[in-house]
Amino acid sequence: MKQILIFDTTLRDGSQGAGISFTIEDKIKIAKALDSSGFTYIEGGWPGANPKDNLFFEQMRKTQLKTAKLTAFGSTRHKNKKTSEDKSLKALVECGAKTACIFGKCWDLQVKYALNTTNDENLKMISESVAFLKSKKLELIFDAEHYFDGYKNNKEYAFKTIKAAMDAGADVICLCETNGGMLPSDIQTIVKETISAFPKIKFGIHAHNDSECAVANSIVAVEEGCTLVQGTINGIGERCGNTNLCSTIPALQIKRNYKCLSKKNLTKLSELSRYVDEIANLITNDSCPYVGKNAFAHKAGIHVSAITKTPETYEHIDPALVGNARRILISDLSGKSNVISKATEMAINMEDVPEKVKKIINIVKEKENNGYQYEDADASFFLLTKKTLDSFKPFFLLKEYRVSIEKDINGNIVSEATVKLYVRDKEEHTVAEGDGPVNALDRCLRKALIKYYPDIKDITLTDFKVRVVNSKANTAAKVRVLIESTDKSKSWGTVGVNENIIDASWQALSDSIEYKLLNCSKK
Amino acid sequence: MKQILIFDTTLRDGSQGAGISFTIEDKIKIAKALDSSGFTYIEGGWPGANPKDNLFFEQMRKTQLKTAKLTAFGSTRHKNKKTSEDKSLKALVECGAKTACIFGKCWDLQVKYALNTTNDENLKMISESVAFLKSKKLELIFDAEHYFDGYKNNKEYAFKTIKAAMDAGADVICLCETNGGMLPSDIQTIVKETISAFPKIKFGIHAHNDSECAVANSIVAVEEGCTLVQGTINGIGERCGNTNLCSTIPALQIKRNYKCLSKKNLTKLSELSRYVDEIANLITNDSCPYVGKNAFAHKAGIHVSAITKTPETYEHIDPALVGNARRILISDLSGKSNVISKATEMAINMEDVPEKVKKIINIVKEKENNGYQYEDADASFFLLTKKTLDSFKPFFLLKEYRVSIEKDINGNIVSEATVKLYVRDKEEHTVAEGDGPVNALDRCLRKALIKYYPDIKDITLTDFKVRVVNSKANTAAKVRVLIESTDKSKSWGTVGVNENIIDASWQALSDSIEYKLLNCSKK
Repeated sequence: MKQILIFDTTLRDGSQGAGISFTIEDKIKIAKALDSSGFTYIEGGWPGANPKDNLFFEQMRKTQLKTAKLTAFGSTRHKNKKTSEDKSLKALVECGAKTACIFGKCWDLQVKYALNTTNDENLKMISESVAFLKSKKLELIFDAEHYFDGYKNNKEYAFKTIKAAMDAGADVICLCETNGGMLPSDIQTIVKETISAFPKIKFGIHAHNDSECAVANSIVAVEEGCTLVQGTINGIGERCGNTNLCSTIPALQIKRNYKCLSKKNLTKLSELSRYVDEIANLITNDSCPYVGKNAFAHKAGIHVSAITKTPETYEHIDPALVGNARRILISDLSGKSNVISKATEMAINMEDVPEKVKKIINIVKEKENNGYQYEDADASFFLLTKKTLDSFKPFFLLKEYRVSIEKDINGNIVSEATVKLYVRDKEEHTVAEGDGPVNALDRCLRKALIKYYPDIKDITLTDFKVRVVNSKANTAAKVRVLIESTDKSKSWGTVGVNENIIDASWQALSDSIEYKLLNCSKK
Repeated sequence: MKQILIFDTTLRDGSQGAGISFTIEDKIKIAKALDSSGFTYIEGGWPGANPKDNLFFEQMRKTQLKTAKLTAFGSTRHKNKKTSEDKSLKALVECGAKTACIFGKCWDLQVKYALNTTNDENLKMISESVAFLKSKKLELIFDAEHYFDGYKNNKEYAFKTIKAAMDAGADVICLCETNGGMLPSDIQTIVKETISAFPKIKFGIHAHNDSECAVANSIVAVEEGCTLVQGTINGIGERCGNTNLCSTIPALQIKRNYKCLSKKNLTKLSELSRYVDEIANLITNDSCPYVGKNAFAHKAGIHVSAITKTPETYEHIDPALVGNARRILISDLSGKSNVISKATEMAINMEDVPEKVKKIINIVKEKENNGYQYEDADASFFLLTKKTLDSFKPFFLLKEYRVSIEKDINGNIVSEATVKLYVRDKEEHTVAEGDGPVNALDRCLRKALIKYYPDIKDITLTDFKVRVVNSKANTAAKVRVLIESTDKSKSWGTVGVNENIIDASWQALSDSIEYKLLNCSKK
């Protein structure tokens, strides 16, 4: 198995993504997580360019990484200056990282317009900067910026920049597809020619996703001989993002037999992906290949019946290899096998009750026609199944609720809810205020139940989604509310639909609590 | 320029995506938008498989498409049955679509495990089904399911399935990469060999994104000779989605000189992408290549002059080609011209009040930070502008409102609103019930105003959208309400944001009425 070095730049190029702003603590946490997952290089930032990055490298002196090499980013020296007087290069030497990655211009157009200098001076900038950092005993990766555009515009000059870096002692030349405009066949041709022109040096690939081809381009580059891949977790980065390492690593390792991570570390990939989203405060993309919540989710009835027999028919890899899992979705596209396998997943045996299965399918179809949706509401589906199987005893019974919202002339708004419930044959009558009517109702319901069912204190609502179901509608439109809840050990989704948003929320709220109570009562 | 046929399956395969549930009205709207954008095929659904799709095709008989061919999806006949007795094939003939797309098995493993039949029977199923539909004068696309896996496992048999469809008269064979597991080099080899084995028939490509390579794989397949591409808007679809047509079309057309759409239709792509997200109620991915809000967004520190001199150093294509625009993230210039041109569009002259323009920009920025959005709420933007210019006299003043929602033990729900308003120095106090709290509030407000402003009777609310703005939140989440209103002559949008959905709705409702009154008073 040929080793491919994984160079993570989540903390540097990834942080250029719109809306991403890591604190130093965030960066340290991510660096540690990447190290624990066996990544070879962790590019931490650009020392000298901003105070936050300086502080990060300072802090990292105290943080022992197990195997990863902390890497500092920078550029070639300024034009017409001495390397020994260049502040940026000095910062690289002094920041404490043992590996430096500097970018230099390879596209003559950029040399002319961005640097405003001559092609020769640019070559000197490259070779002197590389030689300087090598003389300081740093491992040196040269990022050949805009290499592919440079090659297309002036191949001879692009080659000269590579030669300059190589002759000055660079350890790796990383070919950068800075604009993200190339398609796989461009990468194939250009990498092939470049490597055959410089057979003795190690090459890497750094791609951007502006053509939605960053992962494909990186894989093609490795197939053509590159041995280092730069990218980010979840592909975060400027504009359309960088190469997504969470998709590139499994492809190379599982499908092409390259070695990137240990088998054990590969299984940490799904968790790592979610962890970085969490720290970056990004909405997780459930459709992410390999590591997303939906990457192995099946909705169509015919697919579900096939995968239970032969998983390879609709799963390109075993989800466990990357620490992910199969999910069966319930929808109006579902058939019998969806219902049975979903029920089995939830430890309900339905093999012997075909007429009940049919009944459930019909209920689901009718409910979906009325705007319900069970894909993200597995707990509501579970309750529906239990109720259809006549194996459900309610934990409480609603007698009535009232919710009021009042706004006065000063703009103050008060939301109040009252609830009357029967719990264990007693009537409970509670009142609560909240930030909005649904929050008030939520608090009120918990207040009524807590003394009977102290377990509900563990429930936290983590997501609340509202959508109008029938688009022709006006303010009398039917709305669907999806709620996601969590306790210390698991998460579950519930759904409610009504013309009245308060009642739709009530349904989802009460389902959430009933699901939790049902699970607790089983223990 | 070689023509590539674009086959959109947003409404069929796209609807398999998790969380996507199109109403029939949604589907018709999207079909019309695709038709207006010049797509060749619009696959609408699977008639016979579910009632919603039947209804859709029924409705589409009344809907005239300009150039697109409405296509119905289905499968080969059931094993050991006659085509003439097959319900699924019958539904295809009767649904009214002139083009049918049926899938058949090409992977012997699937034939064995999914169909439980013999390889020979499967070949008969393919050829008889194709011949049957051709005898009914339908254009016929054969979706060669799992073709690439089939080829790898048993090339000889995979070829036989292609030959069966071809000999029976299929117009196009679409090679389906059903599992999404292939990498570009697989596609390259297999498409090349397949086309050279069957040089006389047209081939298409249908890819999935499980390896984050769907776009790359589709481009490679076209480069190897496929002339039809199946995919969806924004790449929505099961698991990790389908080929994203919004990335594939521009690559083929702008970078490889194929013809997919007219130049004018290509510029509609960004709008189409947002429209489908809006209808599907998906959070728009701002990082989407080509069409995303951030696809051409440049961060601070990059010289605007450098972009204008050599845009190709920062942008892989001209964003205008796909109807997108460059964004300079911290530029007041673009903001100013936006405000001025939007105001001019609404007949407000702002050329001479630069300090007011600045004030409006700041208000809009702050409001957008708080979750407001004016793209679909031009009437709220108009009122905001008028208020900032001190040229607005309110038509009424809210003293207070109360809304209550009560549910009793029988499940009856009553929503009641009371409103106290000052109108022309008089206090009006009204009460109304409604289908849900917002509808009650709407009726109550109209009741209070109608005798002063009879014009408001013309207002109809045509759309009501609710979206949770801060995703990390629970039931105390902030929500955005967008309302679309219409009278006999025009439509307008208004927006409201609050933790309290009732108050967010109030803002949008009262903006809608004020906008109407302002327009009437001008006449």
